[in-house]
Amino acid sequence: MAVTADPCWVDGERSSQLPLPDRGLAFGDGVFETLLLVNGAAMLLAYHEERLQSGLERLGIAATRPLLAATVEQAAGESPAGYAALRVTVTRGTGPRGYAPPPAPSARVIVQLSPLQHDPYAWREPLAIDYSSVRLGRQPQLAGIKHLNRLEQVLAAAECAREGWGEALMLDESGRVVSAVAGNLFLVRGGDLLTPALDGCGVAGTRRRAVIERWAPALGLAVEECAIDGEVVQQADEVFICNSLQGLRAVGVCRKRRWSDFPVTRALLDVARQEMDGMVQA
Amino acid sequence: MAVTADPCWVDGERSSQLPLPDRGLAFGDGVFETLLLVNGAAMLLAYHEERLQSGLERLGIAATRPLLAATVEQAAGESPAGYAALRVTVTRGTGPRGYAPPPAPSARVIVQLSPLQHDPYAWREPLAIDYSSVRLGRQPQLAGIKHLNRLEQVLAAAECAREGWGEALMLDESGRVVSAVAGNLFLVRGGDLLTPALDGCGVAGTRRRAVIERWAPALGLAVEECAIDGEVVQQADEVFICNSLQGLRAVGVCRKRRWSDFPVTRALLDVARQEMDGMVQA
Repeated sequence: MAVTADPCWVDGERSSQLPLPDRGLAFGDGVFETLLLVNGAAMLLAYHEERLQSGLERLGIAATRPLLAATVEQAAGESPAGYAALRVTVTRGTGPRGYAPPPAPSARVIVQLSPLQHDPYAWREPLAIDYSSVRLGRQPQLAGIKHLNRLEQVLAAAECAREGWGEALMLDESGRVVSAVAGNLFLVRGGDLLTPALDGCGVAGTRRRAVIERWAPALGLAVEECAIDGEVVQQADEVFICNSLQGLRAVGVCRKRRWSDFPVTRALLDVARQEMDGMVQA
Repeated sequence: MAVTADPCWVDGERSSQLPLPDRGLAFGDGVFETLLLVNGAAMLLAYHEERLQSGLERLGIAATRPLLAATVEQAAGESPAGYAALRVTVTRGTGPRGYAPPPAPSARVIVQLSPLQHDPYAWREPLAIDYSSVRLGRQPQLAGIKHLNRLEQVLAAAECAREGWGEALMLDESGRVVSAVAGNLFLVRGGDLLTPALDGCGVAGTRRRAVIERWAPALGLAVEECAIDGEVVQQADEVFICNSLQGLRAVGVCRKRRWSDFPVTRALLDVARQEMDGMVQA
């Protein structure tokens, strides 16, 4: 029974059936991207493409380059007006039994298009968050890329649902904060921005990159990527979480700490919103 | 293009198509077992069933209990005479976008039956191994179970193929040895057995459990589960690797260390072989 009737494509054909065996299912042997489509156009397409290619390279999966533009174009034909999520999964495809990749694998591309009901760059209710009990395992060889091994996030998201948290902070084993469950984390301190370095674990998000390279500089803000102890989060002037479908979300509560003013987060969201509006008009 | 024409089943129906979306593909949200079938009967079925259920519990996936017996029975009808591998994958099934498990997911069972050309409990050429450059990330919440997040093993198996190694030792970040890429590890020292404790990472293999609980005791050997530094492997009297489809494989070379006598490994293999033969006659 399918929960969704979202349009899906497998290797460019409309299909909601994955041919078996597939190494994506067998081992999580692949990567994915979740793009925001606005009236059928993908926001920050180049960033998504670069991260996707970097992930494929890290895993040694040969695939078309560029891959996303044609995929987006195909999906755009069926994309509703307004906002949609486009998930693009690239696996190492089929192969014989066993962990070893086949000598000449053929990457498989699986695409799912889902309408979004919310406007990702509107100001929304700040999140109430807490610290996840799930620690992220350190794995520098997979850090940064958006691969398909996401059980840590699944367990943490289940904990959020159980505990009624809007999101959660994920720490590594040494107690440093890495990210939210489904997004990157920024702290505002003394007018500048801090975000966790991602050399040991975590996903280098496209919105994280946009904050660092475009949106913060547009406001004259410096961003430092560094090691951040978990408890430092509660000492920040503002905290926000970002991802492709949530845009920038302010954090309003973390345990006993409450925030009610978000001037920097609001200003960054305005800049991001303008970029999205500009894209829509283009 | 399918590399294999192996029989597959999805939720009990003959099918080599996985309905999308599936959380197994999306996040590696599931577990698997690889069983050895001998003339259609599964070796160590109870151990596989217990590990599978333990994995499902750890991930919070509700599924039939017991699950494997009926699956094996169905596959046995198409199993060739002799040896075959039965891979049983259980995912959290379908669900809406996002990491959070749906409130009432329906587990999906994907089965693949592959003939085996070799006799897993025959004595075979000892393996030449080395140390993998891929370190296993510490993740106690997932340690021991056979979940679908296997990119570390995929990268290490690719390294083995590239370097021409028969297998490789996987260490954790602190330099302790955890396992082989696709199997557990035992050292013989002074007549007893050592095997790495698996509290931080690694898979608790069914053959590992059989060695500890049945095959070593049958020979009057003690087995200690403990922390083992990587270099200690080369100081052992014998080294062997075990998994469901390889049985027990002696290690003949690890870097400059060579072994040529394997009395304990041969004796254990004999015990295991008798168990398999007894099962076939039963």
